[in-house]
Amino acid sequence: MGNVLNNLKDLVKSNESKMVLCVVDGLGGIPHPDFGGKTELEAARTPNLDALARKSTLGLMIPVHYGITPGSGPGHIALFGYDPEELVIGRGVLEALGVGMELKEGDVAARANFATKNAEGIITDRRAGRIATEECQRLVQKLQESIRIIEDVEILLKPGKEHRFVMVLRGSGLGDNLKDTDPQKEGFPPYEPKGLDVPSEKTARIVRKFLEKAEEILRHEPKANAILLRGFSQSPALEKFPERYGVRALAVAIYPMYKGIARLFGFDTPDVEGDLRNEIELLRSRWKEYDFFFLHYKDTDKAGEDGNFLRKVECIEYFDSLLPEILSLSPDVLVITGDHATPSLLKGHSWHPSPVLLYSPYGGIPTGTRFTERECATGYLGHFPAKALMSLMLASALRLGKFGA
Amino acid sequence: MGNVLNNLKDLVKSNESKMVLCVVDGLGGIPHPDFGGKTELEAARTPNLDALARKSTLGLMIPVHYGITPGSGPGHIALFGYDPEELVIGRGVLEALGVGMELKEGDVAARANFATKNAEGIITDRRAGRIATEECQRLVQKLQESIRIIEDVEILLKPGKEHRFVMVLRGSGLGDNLKDTDPQKEGFPPYEPKGLDVPSEKTARIVRKFLEKAEEILRHEPKANAILLRGFSQSPALEKFPERYGVRALAVAIYPMYKGIARLFGFDTPDVEGDLRNEIELLRSRWKEYDFFFLHYKDTDKAGEDGNFLRKVECIEYFDSLLPEILSLSPDVLVITGDHATPSLLKGHSWHPSPVLLYSPYGGIPTGTRFTERECATGYLGHFPAKALMSLMLASALRLGKFGA
Repeated sequence: MGNVLNNLKDLVKSNESKMVLCVVDGLGGIPHPDFGGKTELEAARTPNLDALARKSTLGLMIPVHYGITPGSGPGHIALFGYDPEELVIGRGVLEALGVGMELKEGDVAARANFATKNAEGIITDRRAGRIATEECQRLVQKLQESIRIIEDVEILLKPGKEHRFVMVLRGSGLGDNLKDTDPQKEGFPPYEPKGLDVPSEKTARIVRKFLEKAEEILRHEPKANAILLRGFSQSPALEKFPERYGVRALAVAIYPMYKGIARLFGFDTPDVEGDLRNEIELLRSRWKEYDFFFLHYKDTDKAGEDGNFLRKVECIEYFDSLLPEILSLSPDVLVITGDHATPSLLKGHSWHPSPVLLYSPYGGIPTGTRFTERECATGYLGHFPAKALMSLMLASALRLGKFGA
Repeated sequence: MGNVLNNLKDLVKSNESKMVLCVVDGLGGIPHPDFGGKTELEAARTPNLDALARKSTLGLMIPVHYGITPGSGPGHIALFGYDPEELVIGRGVLEALGVGMELKEGDVAARANFATKNAEGIITDRRAGRIATEECQRLVQKLQESIRIIEDVEILLKPGKEHRFVMVLRGSGLGDNLKDTDPQKEGFPPYEPKGLDVPSEKTARIVRKFLEKAEEILRHEPKANAILLRGFSQSPALEKFPERYGVRALAVAIYPMYKGIARLFGFDTPDVEGDLRNEIELLRSRWKEYDFFFLHYKDTDKAGEDGNFLRKVECIEYFDSLLPEILSLSPDVLVITGDHATPSLLKGHSWHPSPVLLYSPYGGIPTGTRFTERECATGYLGHFPAKALMSLMLASALRLGKFGA
C-alpha cells in the first residue's frame, strides 16, 4: 500500500459530516444456474437500493487480492482501511472475540479443544468425540471454578461449540510466540508448551501449570481428559481507527466477533440484540454522538454459507426494506458493500469482488440503474482494493486535505 | 506484490480439477485504420470464442505495468504468477532456450556474435558482415569439434541466425557475474572477460581460454575472425511451478523458447511438431496425467510482428476453429489470453493490455457477447496485473483455501 494511504492522518480534517459504512456480510454473489443464472442481488427486489444506486457511484472491491478468499478478519481489516496482508489478527484472538470475550492489551488468547488421551498420554481423539456443547459448558465451568490464577496471571475460560473453548491469560510480561500444543493428528502426544522468546517462556510456564491442573481435574472424564491449544496470539498493535481518521466511531453489530474486531480498532461497541431493525434503532439513538458508523448485517452471509439462495435473496430484500430508515438520518456519505462475497452456489466465502455503492453529493458519476455485481463491474469507481475504501469515504465527506502543494 | 500472492503455497489445495491456460501469443491489438478501425480480434469471425465469451468472465490484463512492453520472458513470468519486475531471465539463458539448448542448474549461457577485428585487435564489424546462417553453422561446428572441454568445464555451442550463436559453459563452481566482452561499438577492442566475484572469476578464466583457442581457429576467416559475448547468465533460482501450485504441469509448445521457459519453471515439455492441431492432440493424449496445461500458440504473434493484419486475423480464426477440440476435453477452468499484445499496426510487441477470457462455473459474471478488447475493457474481471491470473485460475478451480480466520 502506498505511503499516502498509510499516512492518511496527515491529511485528515474534521467537519460535521456523518459517514455510514453498511457491511452486508457476504453480499456479493455469482450466477446460480438453478435461478436463471442470476446472482442473489440480481434476483432480489430492491427498489430502495436501486433508487439509491441511480444517484450513487458503483464499483467492485477486491477484499485482499485477486483470487484470494478472505476470512472475516482480513475482510474487515481492509474495510477499515488497514492492509490485510500486513496486519494479522491471530486465531486465538479471533476465537476469543467470537465467543464475546473482551481482550485487554497484553492478553494472550488461544483456541482450546477438549481431546481424549490414553494411559500413555497419546491423543486418540483430537475432538473428544465432539462432546455436546452443554458438556463443554459444564467442563469449562468446572475448570474455571478451580483455576482462576496461576502465579500473577489470571486464567479466563469460555466455552464455544462442542469440544471447543477459549483460554485467555491476563497478566504482565506475557508473550504470544508459542508453538501450538495440538499435534494436529491422532497417535501422538501433545507438544509441550514452548516459548520461543523470553516473554513467551513465561506464557509457556503458565500454560504448562494450567494443563497439569486442568488434566488432573479432567482425569476421570471418559472422553474429555486432555486439552489441546493452538493459535496463541495477542491483539495486534495498531493505530486506532478514531485517531487514524479523526472521527468518533461507533460499531453497530449483533455478533460478538464483529463487535470484537471493531473494539480492537477502537470503535465504541454498545450491545444490541434482535435484528437489523434493532441495529438501526441503535444507530439512530447514537447519531449525534459519532461521526463514523459501522453497521454490520450478518444474515446474508449465513444464508450464503448455508447455500440457501432464496434465503439470501430474502435477507437482501429485508435490508432493502430498512434502507429508508438509514437514509432518513441523512448521512453525508453512505457506503453499502460486503466484507467478502458468499455466493450461495459455493456455500462459503469466496474470492469474488464485493459490489460497492458510495452515496454522497461529491461521490462522482452515477452509472447504474440497479445495485448488482453486473452494474458495479462497469461502475465509475472501477475495481479497487477494499483497503482504499476509507480514503474514498473520507474524501467524499470532505475530510481529506490536499496531498502535496 | 503483496505477500499473499507470493505465498500462495500456504493456501493451495489439491483436487481433481483440470486447468488450461491458452496463450495466444501477441493476441491483443489496437484499431487499424486500414481495416475499418478494427482490431484483429474484432475483424476475425470467431463464433466459438464468442459463444464461450457469453458464458465466461472477461477482463484486460496488464502484463508488467502500464505502458511497459514486455519481452517473451517477462510476459510468461507474469502469466505463470511470478513477479516480472523481480524475477529476471538473463539474455544468455533466453537465447539458449530460444535455440533449443537444455540448461542444467549452474550452467552459464551467453549470447555470442561472430565479428571482424583488424590486425590491431580493433573490432571493425560487430556482426562480421552478417554472415549467412549456413556459414555460421559451419563455423560453430568447426569450433565445437575442436573445443569440447576447458579445465573441468564443458563448452556447448549452438548456431542461431546469421552471425549469432549461443555458448553454454557446464561445470561446477561457475558464476555469471561477468561483464560483456562486446564493446557495443566498432573501433574498440573487445573487453577482457572479467569476473566480478570469485565463482565468476573461474567463468572468466574459462572464457578467456575459449576465446584464445577459438580465435586461433578463426584466424584465417575473412570476416568472422573474432567473437563477442554478452548477457552471461544462469537460470534463475525459483520455486518451481508444480511445487508452488501443487499441480502436475504440462507445457505444450512448438517453439523452443516457450518450451524452454516452461522447463525453467518445472513444466514437463514433450516435443511436438506441426501446428496447433498437433498441439491439441498432444494435450488430449496427456490429459489424464496432468492438472495444469500451458498451451502456446505462436502464429498470431508472428503475423503481428510482420505487420500482417489479415494473416493475424486468419490465425485467430484458425484458433477459433480448433477451440471446440479443447472444450471437448471439459476443462474445469480455461483461460484464453496473450503474453503481451502484438498489434499489426505496430509490427511488434506492445504495452497494450491483453484481453482475457476465464471460463469456469465459478468465475463470476459474464458480461460480453464477443471476445474482443472492447468487450474485455468493460468486463467483470476489470483491469488486473497478469501476475494475478494464476490466483484467479486456482481460485476458480476451487484449489485455494481461505486467507486468515
